[in-house]
Amino acid sequence: MKVVGQGLPRVEILEKVTGESVFGADVRLAAPILIGKILGSPHAHARIKSIDARKAERLPGVKAVVTAQDLPPVKYGRFVRDEEYFAHKKVRLVGDKIAAVAAIDEETAEEAIKLIKVEYEVLPHFTDGVEAMREGAALIHEEYDQYQALSMVEGRKGNICYHKQTVQGDTNRGFQEAERIFEHSFYAPMVHQTYIEPHAVLARVDASGKATVWVPTQAQFFIRASIAEIFQLPLIKVRVIPTEIGGGFGGKMLPTIEPAAVALARKSGMAVQIVMSRAEDFQVANPRTPCHLRYKTGVKLDGTIMAREVELVFGTGAYCGNGLVICQRAEMLASGPYRIPNVKIDLFCAYTNHANCGPYRAPSGPQISFASESQIDIIARELNLDPVEMRLKNAIEEGDTTPACGGPLKSVHAKETLLKAAEAAGWKERRREKNRGRGIALGYWLVGGMASSAGVKLNEDGTATVMTGVIDLSGTVTSLGQIVAEVLGVELDDVHVRTADSDFAPHSTISAGSQALRSMGSATKWAAEEVKKQIMEVAADKLEAEVSDLVVEGKRVYVKGSPERGLSLGQVGQLSLTHKRGPIVSIQSVSIFPNQPAISAHVTDVEVNPETGAVKVLRYVAAQDVGTAINPLSVMGQVQGAVIQGLGQALTEECIFQNGRMINPTFLDYKIFSSLDAPRVEVHLVEHAAEDGPFGAKGIGEPSIIPVPAAVANAVYDAVGVRISDLPLTAEKILMAIQEKNKSG
Amino acid sequence: MKVVGQGLPRVEILEKVTGESVFGADVRLAAPILIGKILGSPHAHARIKSIDARKAERLPGVKAVVTAQDLPPVKYGRFVRDEEYFAHKKVRLVGDKIAAVAAIDEETAEEAIKLIKVEYEVLPHFTDGVEAMREGAALIHEEYDQYQALSMVEGRKGNICYHKQTVQGDTNRGFQEAERIFEHSFYAPMVHQTYIEPHAVLARVDASGKATVWVPTQAQFFIRASIAEIFQLPLIKVRVIPTEIGGGFGGKMLPTIEPAAVALARKSGMAVQIVMSRAEDFQVANPRTPCHLRYKTGVKLDGTIMAREVELVFGTGAYCGNGLVICQRAEMLASGPYRIPNVKIDLFCAYTNHANCGPYRAPSGPQISFASESQIDIIARELNLDPVEMRLKNAIEEGDTTPACGGPLKSVHAKETLLKAAEAAGWKERRREKNRGRGIALGYWLVGGMASSAGVKLNEDGTATVMTGVIDLSGTVTSLGQIVAEVLGVELDDVHVRTADSDFAPHSTISAGSQALRSMGSATKWAAEEVKKQIMEVAADKLEAEVSDLVVEGKRVYVKGSPERGLSLGQVGQLSLTHKRGPIVSIQSVSIFPNQPAISAHVTDVEVNPETGAVKVLRYVAAQDVGTAINPLSVMGQVQGAVIQGLGQALTEECIFQNGRMINPTFLDYKIFSSLDAPRVEVHLVEHAAEDGPFGAKGIGEPSIIPVPAAVANAVYDAVGVRISDLPLTAEKILMAIQEKNKSG
Repeated sequence: MKVVGQGLPRVEILEKVTGESVFGADVRLAAPILIGKILGSPHAHARIKSIDARKAERLPGVKAVVTAQDLPPVKYGRFVRDEEYFAHKKVRLVGDKIAAVAAIDEETAEEAIKLIKVEYEVLPHFTDGVEAMREGAALIHEEYDQYQALSMVEGRKGNICYHKQTVQGDTNRGFQEAERIFEHSFYAPMVHQTYIEPHAVLARVDASGKATVWVPTQAQFFIRASIAEIFQLPLIKVRVIPTEIGGGFGGKMLPTIEPAAVALARKSGMAVQIVMSRAEDFQVANPRTPCHLRYKTGVKLDGTIMAREVELVFGTGAYCGNGLVICQRAEMLASGPYRIPNVKIDLFCAYTNHANCGPYRAPSGPQISFASESQIDIIARELNLDPVEMRLKNAIEEGDTTPACGGPLKSVHAKETLLKAAEAAGWKERRREKNRGRGIALGYWLVGGMASSAGVKLNEDGTATVMTGVIDLSGTVTSLGQIVAEVLGVELDDVHVRTADSDFAPHSTISAGSQALRSMGSATKWAAEEVKKQIMEVAADKLEAEVSDLVVEGKRVYVKGSPERGLSLGQVGQLSLTHKRGPIVSIQSVSIFPNQPAISAHVTDVEVNPETGAVKVLRYVAAQDVGTAINPLSVMGQVQGAVIQGLGQALTEECIFQNGRMINPTFLDYKIFSSLDAPRVEVHLVEHAAEDGPFGAKGIGEPSIIPVPAAVANAVYDAVGVRISDLPLTAEKILMAIQEKNKSG
Repeated sequence: MKVVGQGLPRVEILEKVTGESVFGADVRLAAPILIGKILGSPHAHARIKSIDARKAERLPGVKAVVTAQDLPPVKYGRFVRDEEYFAHKKVRLVGDKIAAVAAIDEETAEEAIKLIKVEYEVLPHFTDGVEAMREGAALIHEEYDQYQALSMVEGRKGNICYHKQTVQGDTNRGFQEAERIFEHSFYAPMVHQTYIEPHAVLARVDASGKATVWVPTQAQFFIRASIAEIFQLPLIKVRVIPTEIGGGFGGKMLPTIEPAAVALARKSGMAVQIVMSRAEDFQVANPRTPCHLRYKTGVKLDGTIMAREVELVFGTGAYCGNGLVICQRAEMLASGPYRIPNVKIDLFCAYTNHANCGPYRAPSGPQISFASESQIDIIARELNLDPVEMRLKNAIEEGDTTPACGGPLKSVHAKETLLKAAEAAGWKERRREKNRGRGIALGYWLVGGMASSAGVKLNEDGTATVMTGVIDLSGTVTSLGQIVAEVLGVELDDVHVRTADSDFAPHSTISAGSQALRSMGSATKWAAEEVKKQIMEVAADKLEAEVSDLVVEGKRVYVKGSPERGLSLGQVGQLSLTHKRGPIVSIQSVSIFPNQPAISAHVTDVEVNPETGAVKVLRYVAAQDVGTAINPLSVMGQVQGAVIQGLGQALTEECIFQNGRMINPTFLDYKIFSSLDAPRVEVHLVEHAAEDGPFGAKGIGEPSIIPVPAAVANAVYDAVGVRISDLPLTAEKILMAIQEKNKSG
């Protein structure tokens, strides 16, 4: 392969580095733009007694005020129709939207917001899922039974939005056959995606009532569908123009401020822009779901896992939103990348009075791995087994199944990935040093693929253009370009890929779930292969040759063995315009199911300061099974980024609530891992072409965030002998645990 | 058919009537825009001795000055590479581009233009093709032999850009067999398309060197290719975003000011807008080619045409541009819609010192029809035959061939169209009145189709979106929507069609030649049919039925005879996203050849004021063979518009030159037919589904302008007995002819 497999710079790099790229808040039109602001509830749970916006409407400079009255009375939701865009009877989280205003400037909009008077009757609230699920807890949705929901939404009761039990084998028998049984509880708090760009939107509504929305989103077709649902419009009356996006990590898939902007634009007749402050984004966007995890694992003394029971309680937030995505994923991942004959998984998704939680890079993955892989470490130590050996003994192999994995697993390289990390880290050769420890953990991820379509056209000069609506968060369009270049025998510079908007793009999958490239890449590759066939068909007529005798290579098509008897692709492009078949173009659709594990194996060395409890990450080795690396540069960047993001979740990050309000919604108080904190991440790719990705590519964006908290927790234990079971592993917790241990020891 | 055949309002009507539509000069960006102006030559033909732009460059507010030095030294041209964008050795027309400036406002730009000093050595010039062709005439292109040209460009010599002789049968023998021979000369002057929107462009060049150009054009892919050629860029480094277009009529297909805007944008680093004044547009855009026509026709006494020799001399302008399109068309049309055994056509295309002429609604059609149909009228009168009978006797029938028609003619309805017009006008029942006359004429047009591709996607709510790059000049996108609605069994409101730009649209044909709908409509219909198949495939799986048992109708797909056993198209759209085939979408390409005549037959009644020579059009009956009228409202509008535009050419319009400068470049001095001058046009459609248009549609935009000048000239003769053989039939000419006749009579 000539282009696939090359570490090439991103195709849009010049726009990015010169500042030309337009991100959400950068969108400007020639027409004047109003500034929109949203009035959110100050209470986490309350009844609304009255709303009076008359003073705000009369404030000079205010062009529109909208409340629930301005929207169709629609309950919406991807899984459960439990949400109304503007609250009018109850608020269920701090920041629940009550009204929005559009004014000529920000100050006026803020003043108008303050002039809206709302009377509340405050109700008891819950920010913890387990508390919300308690018998007799005040109901967050009194009418939950009457809500419409997808048929997969089972087990609704009280504040339980969803409960599902998944059984494989017989855990009772499995525990009977086990020689030791271990049971531990863990907790992973809410953390935020902390994309550098907060949510932003600009909306305009034209004379025909069509709404156009510029928005940085990972899922333009989701946003289109949601706006259409909320405003009861056909999809063709909503146009979503994706801007460049400053990070998403799962947090930019469902509408937040977009419908408010549309409502204000429609009422004012002008364009309206809303940009969230960082604090608003922390408070009301879609962070990672906090989770209580209980793991009960039965093993033989040789380390063979006989049975595992898992109970997960997710506190999903005030509305379901994309929350069930986490449960769906958790069902697949909860038992880990292990061959376990008997598994029972209980998943609870509870309503809670905080932001709707949703996907965040490997939804449920780091929480589950933290619990599961901490426990494996505990068990190995208890049984006096090497943690690598114990994992090797149980790791999945080709053809195994794990719960909900969608068929026998294919392209499995768990053991090789584990060994690669262990070897790279020198697992066996280490010297022990005081207060220093080493931890290992595995990450389990199943790469699926949603439905996608993409097109390729050959231009009249032999260059090619990819027709796609895919959002590029991590180099996807560059990789699509490489795929087309490889198929057509041209260079990456000969291929144009940019993202079309929802009016003009074929349906593209979301850029999430590590499946954008696998899915879009497959559709694009098929389209390119079809274009190649058409090239040969047109050339065969001109060259008076058989299609089967032609080669497409080096920007030319020619007769095998007679390179001079050929045409440039530009000549073919020109010819096609007078050839009976017409322009050379193809569009293809794919749908790919999730049965390919993408395993990550991490080894980290840490040092714990015994006086402060502070952890310093000394070394980080990450191995990942990526199938084929279409663009190794991009893949390495993804792995490194995931590890650094994971380190924040392991050590410092947590959304802290008081009275339902997040009290640390700034980067001063919510500490992410910066480049100053970050170790060098040594990346090792395990490359075996996967069965059905484009050129064998698997998904790469998420797997490497998964094992980080567990690897760090295991290393901390190794260093100072304390086991922290609730994230993050702050210095305070470690210090207290050390003191406790010293006291009892 | 439920949607096709309905006279529905245009889909973009609300944007148009509310003024929301963005035309060329309306484009605004959020970033500041510079105003560009072009320095054109004051001489029709001169050598450039020196160019000094230093003073202009130093003028405060000027951001860029460009000349030939700023562009690659490239000669370009669609047929002949005879043009350099900025002249630097010679100028060949008044307005030939020498330099351009971009400044902060129009005044500064104009002042800067005046500061550019150019020294010339004036040369003899020609604005008439016959004069330019004379032996020994000064050469407009001294190096013509060295220019690259397409292989079809034959007969180059002196100022003759192209000469082709086409022979069918043996005219010598034909004239021998004839009983009478008639020979006449005619002249049709340059006329301008007089679109309401002059040329306008806005260009920007990004950090990667990619040029984006907003432009009202009929041919976004031509503009893209031309800019790429002039700047030596790959096609993927040029993006053409077509704006709404205020008329084109063939005059907006090749670049005029676009490259200047790109050059200025590149040099200044800013966006640059250039908007032509009306006078500039008259002077340097691409008007209809002036033409000398000589017709020699041999007939039997019963009116049977035995032979016809035609000699046409087109004065094409300073550069070839799209000029040969006119010759290609003239070759097809010159002998008229008649079955003539012996034909010889000599086509001359001569360089002249005025604007490059090019296509204008039915290129060469009105000029040819004026000559040919005037002569048929003369012959019928001489032979004492009814003009309708004489035409009927010779008119083409199914399977006939005419020169260069691309195979035996299909879907021929010449006689029926002629009879329909005659009958509607009451040809036989008329009463003679003093100074009033009636004329009849036929128009001959062959509808082809260039290569096109178009896509259709089914959205998740059952609406459909058309993916097309077609430019809508006359309701094309509405008709495409009707075609898709018809195929998918939905309403026009359920289909979205807007024009995508060159980066995202599949290759679309030009919107010209009356073939946009025929060609794009076919590609769109095929794509819709493929989408319908995919709908049935997905539904069949869900309904557990055979595809062959399914019906798609009324926004549903269901089992034949069991309407309740079905799915809405929205359900199918949703299902497709989890179905193995993925999103429902298709893109198709077509290439259609010109062998379908679209005949127009016109009868007009006029009154001539014998004191002034002024002609009043009392009544106008137009019949046109349209195949199937996809949208009769749109078809009727096209016929009416064509007739009114033709009346201007018949009676009042002419570009008048003095020293190579057009001296009437305003609507005060160049008189177009306004609504106050226009008669009601009675339109009669001849509808027979044509063999290979979408639902049988033929092209409709051009045919009805063709017979107008001849019909009027024949009516004037009928009224007052004078034959005017050079257009337009001004009052002055008629009055002089009447006086002449009275003198000699």
